[in-house]
Parts: sequence; C-alpha cells; structure tokens
Amino acid sequence: MAARSAEREPAHADPAERGRRFERQLGAYRRRVRPAVMSALPRRGPAGLYELAAVYPGRPWKGLRSALCLATCEAFGGRQDEALRTAAAIELFHNAFLVYDDIQDDSELRRGRPTLHGAHGTGVALNVGNATTLLAMQQLLANRRELGSRRAELIARESDRMMQVTLEGQAMELGWIRSNADGLTPRDYLRMCLKKTSWYSFIYPLRVGAIIAQGELPRERLLRFGWYLGAAFQIQDDILNLVGRQDDYGKEIGGDLREGKRTLMLTHLMAHGAPRVRRHLIELLGRPCDRRGPPEIRWILGQMVEAGSIDFARRAARQLAGAALAEGHSALRGVADGDAKRFILQMPLYVVDRQR
Amino acid sequence: MAARSAEREPAHADPAERGRRFERQLGAYRRRVRPAVMSALPRRGPAGLYELAAVYPGRPWKGLRSALCLATCEAFGGRQDEALRTAAAIELFHNAFLVYDDIQDDSELRRGRPTLHGAHGTGVALNVGNATTLLAMQQLLANRRELGSRRAELIARESDRMMQVTLEGQAMELGWIRSNADGLTPRDYLRMCLKKTSWYSFIYPLRVGAIIAQGELPRERLLRFGWYLGAAFQIQDDILNLVGRQDDYGKEIGGDLREGKRTLMLTHLMAHGAPRVRRHLIELLGRPCDRRGPPEIRWILGQMVEAGSIDFARRAARQLAGAALAEGHSALRGVADGDAKRFILQMPLYVVDRQR
Repeated sequence: MAARSAEREPAHADPAERGRRFERQLGAYRRRVRPAVMSALPRRGPAGLYELAAVYPGRPWKGLRSALCLATCEAFGGRQDEALRTAAAIELFHNAFLVYDDIQDDSELRRGRPTLHGAHGTGVALNVGNATTLLAMQQLLANRRELGSRRAELIARESDRMMQVTLEGQAMELGWIRSNADGLTPRDYLRMCLKKTSWYSFIYPLRVGAIIAQGELPRERLLRFGWYLGAAFQIQDDILNLVGRQDDYGKEIGGDLREGKRTLMLTHLMAHGAPRVRRHLIELLGRPCDRRGPPEIRWILGQMVEAGSIDFARRAARQLAGAALAEGHSALRGVADGDAKRFILQMPLYVVDRQR
Repeated sequence: MAARSAEREPAHADPAERGRRFERQLGAYRRRVRPAVMSALPRRGPAGLYELAAVYPGRPWKGLRSALCLATCEAFGGRQDEALRTAAAIELFHNAFLVYDDIQDDSELRRGRPTLHGAHGTGVALNVGNATTLLAMQQLLANRRELGSRRAELIARESDRMMQVTLEGQAMELGWIRSNADGLTPRDYLRMCLKKTSWYSFIYPLRVGAIIAQGELPRERLLRFGWYLGAAFQIQDDILNLVGRQDDYGKEIGGDLREGKRTLMLTHLMAHGAPRVRRHLIELLGRPCDRRGPPEIRWILGQMVEAGSIDFARRAARQLAGAALAEGHSALRGVADGDAKRFILQMPLYVVDRQR
C-alpha cells in the first residue's frame, strides 16, 4: 500500500535512489501523455505545417509540466484520464513556446538537434508555433464535452491568464536585453521568472489539475508553491546553460550570455563585480549578438566564477526549492498521502538536482 | 425610409457616387469598432508589449472585416452592439496576422510606415503578434457573458476553424515559395486564397455576424459569397502590389515579386510565357530574396505586361466579384432590404474598384 509512503519515507533517503524513483514515476506519466500529444497533431494538411509541429514533440522530452498536472489531479482526488487532454494541451503550449523562444533567442539547438527556424526559416517556424498553440487550444475546446461547461470554463480562464502572464514575462526579458538593463535586483529577476517560467510551467499545471479534480478554483498556496518551484527550475536551467554538458542539456552552452539574458548570475555579477569589470561587462552586453563571441563569453564566465555569482545562484536555487517544499507541504495538507503527492513534493529537489 | 432602397437604386448608378456612399457607410461602422478595438488593449504592462500592440491599430485602416460582421448581424435581424466585441476581435485577429505576415514576408512597410519587426526586431514583434491574438480571444471569452453560452460556443468553434484554415493557407503560400513551385493553376491559387484570405477576412465575419443574429449556423451560400469576395479582394491586392501607388497602398510596391509570392499574375506568366521567359523566371524565383533586386523585378513585371498576365488577373477579379454578387444575392434572399444589406452587396464591386 502506498497510502502513507510519503510520510514513511526516511528523511535522509539516498538521493540517487530518490532521483531514480522520481524519474520512473515521471516516465510513467509521460507514457500516458505522449500518445495524447501525438494524436492531437493532424495527420493531413499542407506540407510544412503539421509534420513540423510534430518535430519537437518527437524528440526526447521530460514531460515535467504534464506530469505535474496529472499528479495534482490525482492528489486532489480526480482521475488521471479526466486530466489527459489538459495535460496534452500543456505540453503543446510548451512546445509552441519553445518554437517562439528559439526564434526570439535565435537559438541553434533544441532537445539536442537543430531548431525549427534554423532548419526551415523563421516564416515557416512561426506558422508551426501558431499551429501548435492552436492545437493546444483545440484540446481545451474538446474539454467542454468531457468535463462539462463549469470546469472547461475555469480551465479556459486559467489558460487565458497563463498566456497573458507568459507573454508579459517574455516582454520583460526581451526588454531588459534590448535596453541593456543595469541595476536589476534578485527581486526583479524573481518577478520575471514568475511570469516567464513559473506560471505556465508550474502554476498553471498545478491549478488546472486541482480544478479538474475539484471543480473550483484552488487555494492560493498552490500558486506560491509553483512560483518558487519555477524560479528554482529556471535558475538551475540558467546554470546548466553556463556549465552543463551540451549533450545532456540539449541547447548550445553559453547561449544565454551570447543573447545577453539577465540571469540571476548576470545580475549578481553586475551588482558585485569590481567597477572596471562592470563597465566592461555592460559594454560587452551592449554589443550586437554577433560581436559577443566565444572569447567574450569565456571572459564573462570567468568573472562570474571569480565574483561567486554561480555559487550564489546555486544557493538561491536550493533555498527556493526549500521554500517551494514548505509551500507544497502546506498546500497539500489534508490531501491523502500516496504516489501522486510524493511525486509533487519531490519535484523541488528534482529540479535543482537535475543535470539536464 | 431606407427599407427598400437596395431595390430602388438604379442599376447604372454613378460608380463614383456609389463608391463614396460605400466609403461613408464603411466610415460609420469603423467609428463604432475603433473604440472597441482600442479599449481591448491593456493600458498597463511591461514595456514593449501592449503599447506596441496599439501601433498597427493606431494607423489608418479601412475596417472592411469588422464592418462586414456588423452589417451581416444587422441584415439578419440582430443588433449592432451585440456584434461589437466580435467585430473588435476580428480586427485584432487581422492586426495579429499583419504582424506575423510582415515577419514572414520580411516586409518593410505596413499602412504606410515601418513594420513592427523592422522597427523593434523579430523577437519583440512576435511577442506583440501573440499578445494581439490573445486580446482577440479575450473579446470572444467575454462574449460568453453577453451572448450566452450557445452563441459564444458557436463563435468559439468558428474562430478555431478560422485560425486553422488561415494557418494552412499561410503554409501553402510559404511552401510554394520555398519549393519554388512551378505548374500551379488558377484552381490552386483559388484554393490557397480561400484559406489564406477569404476565410478570415470574409467568410468568418459573415458567419459570426449571422450566428450572433440568429443563434444558429448560417446557410452554406454565405461561405461561397465570402470565398469569391475574398479571392477578388486578394487578386486586386496583388495587382496593387505590382502597379499601385505606394502612398495609397501602404506597402512597398513590387514586394510580392521580391518575396516570390505565387500570385495569379505569376502563375499566369509561368503557364503562358515563352519557354525562355519561363526558364529565366524560374531561375530568378529560385534565388534568395536579396538576389532578386529592382532590375529583376522590373523584368518580371515587363514580361507580365507582355504576356497579358495583369489583364488576365483584372478580368478574373471582376468575374469573381460578379460571381460573389450572385452568391450574395442568393444568400441574402429573404433578408429585408436596407442599408446593411446594400452595404454587403456593394462590397464585391468595392474590393475590385479600390486603389488602396
């Protein structure tokens, strides 16, 4: 019986074993979601649209977002199959955002292979991103039949809010790059994270999972859990972008520095580097992308190591994961123990431990 | 009393006077829709998002699409104010598509001034396009309160279909350019037009206008009316792109040839030019955009004049306008005469007579 296993698990369980168990559960969720995602893609249509919308979903993916939705639905007493369409929509939205992101950042690699716009041009990729968004919304439209109008309506409003918040987060990040923003604080970074990453990746899956199970808006604590979890996730993502292995990470290492992204490490270096370092840094970041090559990127990385920016970010990610765990425990108080609850509460450690 | 004026109007009314009356009515519709569009744009948010979403709607526009929706709602016995949110959504969708189109075609001018991506970069413009789409959908979400769930649901399904068809039309056009397609027929062109232009610009406004008035799906004839009307509109648009005045047209003249767009004129020249002309044409169109400059564009234009391609397209546009008029009369049979009906039935001639 797994009913009380979340409580019975020893506090100092072997981290490697804990990670493997989480990965197994994640894999089980993914095996349910993947067919739902693939069957949402039309099989017929003009060349250069739906078969390209299948490219990113056809590469290896973790499925954290959809797993979180299914687990939350289960934890709050719902059935997995009720949340399956919504889980598929979540992954489709994510895939659409990846296509848009890659265009906006002019990235070269995604999930270990060339980006869509790199291989097929910006015009075609933009169309594919829009088609993927539309296919996600079609899953939500079909919810109306299966979940009834009240739940479908609540989910539609959550989805609208999620898209708006995400666009605003993207606008903040792009705005900081274009204005070569200086003087940003960790608080600014966390607000941007809330909007750009946490909302669509964690808050939205948590909230819609709870809505499907309960038929009403979930408690506010779930939002804070998702916020901190998303911030920890994003900081770890940014660290991997600097010091990860490209084969594991799937994107080009150092890409964020080339793009001038205001990561927590960069805002730390801007605030704590020596004055001449900060001056040179701002000059480098003010250049167009193609005049910030490997030597400049190596220099920035070296300064980050020296100023302790990467260690600072690692500590921040772990603190945020701890804060997320506390919020998660509190948000799930009263929820029966079991595999789903344990999976949700292991996610904070997983997102900061992961190497890819 | 205007009730029977559509019938009483002399068959050979002065075309200039007819055009002026149509423009006055169009202006009256636009004065209702413009405030609804502008008030759909949030006033607060991160820099580089909503104030840029207001850029294209803030330039002069005709508002054909929203006017057609309002007029159709009226003609079928509905009230204008019931259709106002949907009319605003139609213009917002159109503005979003313009942002996407300009990125995809790498156009320089829109409504007589620099394109969004030209002025602010592709990343920011893409975000603005997505925000504009979302704001359109928010108008439709708000419909649920005002029109009730049955009509809102029908409109949501029409909107979903419209977006999907439009994306497929864009994919067809982009695919033809990228594959340097040869051997296309007028029938291929009309199918692409149906999807790329007619559906969102004419069929969708007609159908949702009728749905708002009647609370049920409209008759099929309305679809054919919109198809032919849209094809006539698109062909005239393509002709203006070749031989219009830039100040009137608002986009760079010859842009379609630079981009390699398969217009009716180009498919005609490919089918009817002399063999050496066709060989050279295909070679020119196979080059990247930036190696198809003003001399090459002038050469293609000269060959089109010689082969009668432009005259062919002008005749086709007028024939399609005639076919649209016949379908329109048939679709509106049984609808009371009046300003709204007259406006709808004057649209076919307007779209082929317009110089901008």
